[in-house]
Amino acid sequence: MGKFARKRAQKVGLPPGSLVYTGEKVDEQVSITIIDYDEQHYQEKEVAGFDQCLLVKDKPGATWIKVNGIHQVGNLEKLGECFNVHPLTLEDILNTDQRPKIEDFENYLYIVLRVINYSQEELSSEQVSLILGSNFLISFQESNGAIFAPILDRLRTSKGRIRKSGADYLAYALMDLIVDNYFVVLEQFGEALEYLEEEVVKRPTHETLQDIHRFKYDMIMLRKSVWPLREVVGHLERKESDLIQETTGVYFKDVYDHTIVAIDNIETYRDILSGMMDIYLSSISNRLNETMKVLTVIATLFMPLTFMAGIWGMNFKHMPELGWVWGYPMALGLMVVVALSMMHYFHRKKWL
Amino acid sequence: MGKFARKRAQKVGLPPGSLVYTGEKVDEQVSITIIDYDEQHYQEKEVAGFDQCLLVKDKPGATWIKVNGIHQVGNLEKLGECFNVHPLTLEDILNTDQRPKIEDFENYLYIVLRVINYSQEELSSEQVSLILGSNFLISFQESNGAIFAPILDRLRTSKGRIRKSGADYLAYALMDLIVDNYFVVLEQFGEALEYLEEEVVKRPTHETLQDIHRFKYDMIMLRKSVWPLREVVGHLERKESDLIQETTGVYFKDVYDHTIVAIDNIETYRDILSGMMDIYLSSISNRLNETMKVLTVIATLFMPLTFMAGIWGMNFKHMPELGWVWGYPMALGLMVVVALSMMHYFHRKKWL
Amino acid sequence: MGKFARKRAQKVGLPPGSLVYTGEKVDEQVSITIIDYDEQHYQEKEVAGFDQCLLVKDKPGATWIKVNGIHQVGNLEKLGECFNVHPLTLEDILNTDQRPKIEDFENYLYIVLRVINYSQEELSSEQVSLILGSNFLISFQESNGAIFAPILDRLRTSKGRIRKSGADYLAYALMDLIVDNYFVVLEQFGEALEYLEEEVVKRPTHETLQDIHRFKYDMIMLRKSVWPLREVVGHLERKESDLIQETTGVYFKDVYDHTIVAIDNIETYRDILSGMMDIYLSSISNRLNETMKVLTVIATLFMPLTFMAGIWGMNFKHMPELGWVWGYPMALGLMVVVALSMMHYFHRKKWL
Amino acid sequence: MGKFARKRAQKVGLPPGSLVYTGEKVDEQVSITIIDYDEQHYQEKEVAGFDQCLLVKDKPGATWIKVNGIHQVGNLEKLGECFNVHPLTLEDILNTDQRPKIEDFENYLYIVLRVINYSQEELSSEQVSLILGSNFLISFQESNGAIFAPILDRLRTSKGRIRKSGADYLAYALMDLIVDNYFVVLEQFGEALEYLEEEVVKRPTHETLQDIHRFKYDMIMLRKSVWPLREVVGHLERKESDLIQETTGVYFKDVYDHTIVAIDNIETYRDILSGMMDIYLSSISNRLNETMKVLTVIATLFMPLTFMAGIWGMNFKHMPELGWVWGYPMALGLMVVVALSMMHYFHRKKWL
Amino acid sequence: MGKFARKRAQKVGLPPGSLVYTGEKVDEQVSITIIDYDEQHYQEKEVAGFDQCLLVKDKPGATWIKVNGIHQVGNLEKLGECFNVHPLTLEDILNTDQRPKIEDFENYLYIVLRVINYSQEELSSEQVSLILGSNFLISFQESNGAIFAPILDRLRTSKGRIRKSGADYLAYALMDLIVDNYFVVLEQFGEALEYLEEEVVKRPTHETLQDIHRFKYDMIMLRKSVWPLREVVGHLERKESDLIQETTGVYFKDVYDHTIVAIDNIETYRDILSGMMDIYLSSISNRLNETMKVLTVIATLFMPLTFMAGIWGMNFKHMPELGWVWGYPMALGLMVVVALSMMHYFHRKKWL
Repeated sequence: MGKFARKRAQKVGLPPGSLVYTGEKVDEQVSITIIDYDEQHYQEKEVAGFDQCLLVKDKPGATWIKVNGIHQVGNLEKLGECFNVHPLTLEDILNTDQRPKIEDFENYLYIVLRVINYSQEELSSEQVSLILGSNFLISFQESNGAIFAPILDRLRTSKGRIRKSGADYLAYALMDLIVDNYFVVLEQFGEALEYLEEEVVKRPTHETLQDIHRFKYDMIMLRKSVWPLREVVGHLERKESDLIQETTGVYFKDVYDHTIVAIDNIETYRDILSGMMDIYLSSISNRLNETMKVLTVIATLFMPLTFMAGIWGMNFKHMPELGWVWGYPMALGLMVVVALSMMHYFHRKKWL
Repeated sequence: MGKFARKRAQKVGLPPGSLVYTGEKVDEQVSITIIDYDEQHYQEKEVAGFDQCLLVKDKPGATWIKVNGIHQVGNLEKLGECFNVHPLTLEDILNTDQRPKIEDFENYLYIVLRVINYSQEELSSEQVSLILGSNFLISFQESNGAIFAPILDRLRTSKGRIRKSGADYLAYALMDLIVDNYFVVLEQFGEALEYLEEEVVKRPTHETLQDIHRFKYDMIMLRKSVWPLREVVGHLERKESDLIQETTGVYFKDVYDHTIVAIDNIETYRDILSGMMDIYLSSISNRLNETMKVLTVIATLFMPLTFMAGIWGMNFKHMPELGWVWGYPMALGLMVVVALSMMHYFHRKKWL
Repeated sequence: MGKFARKRAQKVGLPPGSLVYTGEKVDEQVSITIIDYDEQHYQEKEVAGFDQCLLVKDKPGATWIKVNGIHQVGNLEKLGECFNVHPLTLEDILNTDQRPKIEDFENYLYIVLRVINYSQEELSSEQVSLILGSNFLISFQESNGAIFAPILDRLRTSKGRIRKSGADYLAYALMDLIVDNYFVVLEQFGEALEYLEEEVVKRPTHETLQDIHRFKYDMIMLRKSVWPLREVVGHLERKESDLIQETTGVYFKDVYDHTIVAIDNIETYRDILSGMMDIYLSSISNRLNETMKVLTVIATLFMPLTFMAGIWGMNFKHMPELGWVWGYPMALGLMVVVALSMMHYFHRKKWL
Repeated sequence: MGKFARKRAQKVGLPPGSLVYTGEKVDEQVSITIIDYDEQHYQEKEVAGFDQCLLVKDKPGATWIKVNGIHQVGNLEKLGECFNVHPLTLEDILNTDQRPKIEDFENYLYIVLRVINYSQEELSSEQVSLILGSNFLISFQESNGAIFAPILDRLRTSKGRIRKSGADYLAYALMDLIVDNYFVVLEQFGEALEYLEEEVVKRPTHETLQDIHRFKYDMIMLRKSVWPLREVVGHLERKESDLIQETTGVYFKDVYDHTIVAIDNIETYRDILSGMMDIYLSSISNRLNETMKVLTVIATLFMPLTFMAGIWGMNFKHMPELGWVWGYPMALGLMVVVALSMMHYFHRKKWL
Repeated sequence: MGKFARKRAQKVGLPPGSLVYTGEKVDEQVSITIIDYDEQHYQEKEVAGFDQCLLVKDKPGATWIKVNGIHQVGNLEKLGECFNVHPLTLEDILNTDQRPKIEDFENYLYIVLRVINYSQEELSSEQVSLILGSNFLISFQESNGAIFAPILDRLRTSKGRIRKSGADYLAYALMDLIVDNYFVVLEQFGEALEYLEEEVVKRPTHETLQDIHRFKYDMIMLRKSVWPLREVVGHLERKESDLIQETTGVYFKDVYDHTIVAIDNIETYRDILSGMMDIYLSSISNRLNETMKVLTVIATLFMPLTFMAGIWGMNFKHMPELGWVWGYPMALGLMVVVALSMMHYFHRKKWL
């Protein structure tokens, strides 16, 4: 819960642009892949660092520099120099608790996205940063995750318009993939919610309530990742930057629509969770009612009977019925009658 | 619940414009009807596919191409070429979980609407896509439903202005029909709510609560279909596209007003459902109160009596009243007095 | 509840401009009154129909055509031709479940208002339509109600500026009257709420809750009639149409302020009703508490006493106290002591 | 509660500009004070009426006409003629249930404010109207209250910039005083809330709940007086009227900030009251829990004991323990053991 | 609670610009530090008062005048004259309950910020005022707190761009520090919330509820300090004043993002606290349920048994089983059977 704040708190008092990685230190190697492509050619190579500045920069066609793992700070400073990236952008790339946002630095657009992962009932999110220049795109991932594999495949096999279009279309493709990925997570949530709903209706326990709240909290988290994305994509769709070509705008409009649908789904899940909360509380009340009915039935049944037994247990000298031969069976019979009338009353009140 | 997300999740990683039908695969034949009309003429024919591109395109007067069933992808690609439709539009037509929206592609307007169906306490919605060009309108329905039959009738019998006006008026007529249809569904809901309200007040059970929540959820769904329609119709009413003629604007204003009334009704139903929730919870509390009162009355009545019987059941040697001839009747009489006083007390407290 | 939707549902599939009266069929005669006036002259006559088109139309000074009862559709079509009224306006006049709205058709303004009536704890509303032209005003009422009588009086007796001003001022006078009428209804509500508040605090029953919800529902209805009026009057106040003269604007500003105050009152009543709901629920809880306390006091008092009686009712041979001469009084005394201590304990806990 | 609506209801059907005083008829004399001042001179005189029209109007320097008590309608009409005041403004001055508002009549600004008074747990508000002309300010108060005394003092003693500045600065000074006065009321509320909070936590009764709701209602009332003030002062601060000089704008900005702080405080109090409501309801629940625990402890303690006494009270011939010499003490001992185990159990459950 | 209002209330009726310190009178000495710096030089000196007006004002490079403690009013008036500061600004500096705000006085920007401090479960806030001129920055703190120490260090050691940039960058550095400081407080809150959450789930008491409300109140306070900051920083980021240089804008954008993240965190904490409230209330209900179950189990177990003992305690002459040799064991056996069946029933109902 205090996680987010904690990351930030490490940096109090440091000058801006101080490159401090605030994510978890992973052991994995940093891997940098440089992918050069145009309609005819495709070239992919892994490099160790950013010493080959000039090599990449001025070539025709689009270039995708894919950085997996950002915890080695040295690389980043070199990269900043090569592509003329503002120190604050570099700081933000390392600051892995950003909200999705877009910043226009004229020579490039800096885009922050969050990839959502939901496994073992645990929601986690990873920051993906994109630097979109006129003919290059640099992507930064925290981990070595293969989320961008489908795009790599399409580039390699020249499927679709991706090889014919520029870096802005590549940025679109990556963002579309990330947004589509939200639907995978939302589907998992949907299934978990269906299971939870059954539990709430049929066998609610105190743990059910905590589950509902865990989901609510997850929804808040998810919303924080998706909601600001709307503005980011909206900014791209309106083609406010020269780096976005006329023809790509309509594609961003499409991502925008998908984002809206994702937000819609999240809001619906929140409404459903609120409804579950109500049903849970009502179940608790109902169960109290049930308990009280059992108690009332038992007490109402046995109190009069016990009283009758008490009457005939009194020690008065002159109680004629005690001497009758049929006194005892008569007493028992009377008790049965009283008990049956009570049962009848409860039956009519639908308590039995 | 996870339904919506699931549909989307099928497409993760595919390039944009990939034509994948995300609705349910229906066995029904795809049927395409081409309706040519102007003030004098009316011609209607069923075609098998879209090979006759040129035939349809350049004729004077308005043409309505009515496509029922969209699961045969091949047809759509052909159509896209004929009418110069953007691949993303084709993708959206097949993507049957769109929110209502409007997209302006200059040579045509792409409009997504949702037709609501409420039968057997089950709310379902079907996507209707409209492509409105300068002199043609293409409509796509998921199923073979006859929702547009009244419009067909009016066209055939030349009733009203519909034959004198262009494709934009036809689009208006279809949208008006869809919005009017919401009121049919809302009426059904209204009746179901009236029945539910009676149930909540008179005989609430745990199922009642679940019914209330089912209705709440339906209202959320309905709202998601109707609310964005406001923007869609508003866009048309403001005549922002050249495809909408001056005289048709006022008709779209009318649809706009109807949409607002529909939204108003939905919000009112939501308020009513919230009120029912309160009444339900209060009923549960009241019933607990009733149960407790029964218990209290019984306990308060019999506990003192049982105690008195216990007193005279004690075995002390020297209890003079036990030897009296009138001891027993006196004891019984005393018990009756106590019981009656208790009854009187409860009567004054309005518990009996 | 389904009332509103039902009206609309009658018209599904009909072409726009179909004149179908959706209100309740009243038997009353349709009455049409034509009032011609300027600063010097005043003329009032009842007519049977609208055959005298030309007679009315081109005269100098303002003319008020007052139509009571709109269920005879024939008249309306004639009128539409006379004054060049759009078919959709005629349709809206008959469609008696409109929200308040204003529509600018250049040659006239079409204004829909709702008159509220609250009698016998039943809230009803009636639609009043105004067609405001350059020198004429046509008003349509559903019923024969005399709501506009004060204006007629002022016109007849030449009281105030009304005779000196044009049709726009007359429109203002009618709207001002309708808004002032809301305050009469709000006053009635205020009194009913005061009575209800007393009931909630002093003798809440399950019916009280239903009353609170009925009022809440009435407030929703009232709000739906008044809230859109704000926009309507705001439109007139900003003098966006040439039909509103410079000097009349300030009067509409006044109506606007009154509308805001009415809305304010409605919101306040809603807040008060929410507060009542809380007090009601708390009363229910309190009463449960009271019941439980009675039960607890009784049980706690008699259980130990009954146990003591049980002790001395045991049949052990060797129970010396049973043989004592003062055993019985001593036992009774002990019981009194126990009972008094219990009473003291409850007294200290403030339960008695 | 119906108070507000009632005032308005008196005026239904009257022509606009009808001067009807809707406040409470006070017996106090109407007093009119005319204060003429510039940097050098200061003159103050009481007048009986407004017959001296010309005398006041065209003099250089600023003039403050201070009217206490507005129930003598005659005066007002004369004044309206003198200063060319619109009849609707005069009507509004008498209509003492206005929301704060500002109206620009070009030759003057009409400003409505509300002075709040909180005494003896009763919140009341009084309407203050200001008419700000180019070199004069007319203020209207309902009562004879001395709220403007500090300003009079500053004028008399020539303290601060007030004598050097024009009528707009005087208007600022009055508004600043009224806004500062809100903080006095808010402080009183703050203290009352502190006391109430203690009551809620320590000794909540049904009256506490009603107190919370009374405060909530007061906050709604207060909010209605302060919230619209924001727009009023905002209008003045933006210097949209020529009557406000350049240098006075910054002072209105200051009043604006204070108004925001007052609104902030009111919202905070509302949040605190909601919190109290929760604590109250939780206290009620807790107390029910306590009651139930007492009942449970008593029942659980004595039911087994009474049962044991019942066992040995049975009349079987062959119950050997009844004949034992140590039978009785043994039985009592066993009962003590059972009772102690129960106590121990409750102690472990923290119920004792 | 009434604290805020109380401060203001001291000043009712005073003329604007009256310099009255509304904070707590601290004994600490007022300390004024003047720091002159440019890329090459750095000079820092403590001064006693502001008599050296000219000395500071017209020098090249940026000058930071750091005022700790503002309760000695005399200094401030001198300063106002030196730097041509508006009296209302001076009044605001002393008025220590301002919301964060920015005011543009053309020759300088006046910025109010709040520093948050959270120690010993007590949230306090201190006002920091900044006056940003073209080449100077004056900062005012209430206390002698060393919050700006890191900036002083960076200036002294010439770390980062701070020495190369102007007064606007210094303002940025101070604001960045204050915003970063919020994350330290939020982290402390996060930890406290984690602890509280555990308490709510595992051992909720009435105090827990009060803790939840205390935190809620703290969040309201925190929100009031941070939320308006958004507008302040947004104003600076948009470079609406000439005092902010082109290159500094991007840094303020960075502070803006951090502010958004802080607000996000606060909103999340509020949601979490609402969730805790629900869990708390549900815990209370559950515990009532538990209590009722214990009572019901006990009563249901012993009432039938006591009744049976009562039966055989009756004094009828003809009760054959009383004479049987195995009567007593048989009776006890029967009781055991009944008890075991009850236990079995409860076990099946999961109450044991």
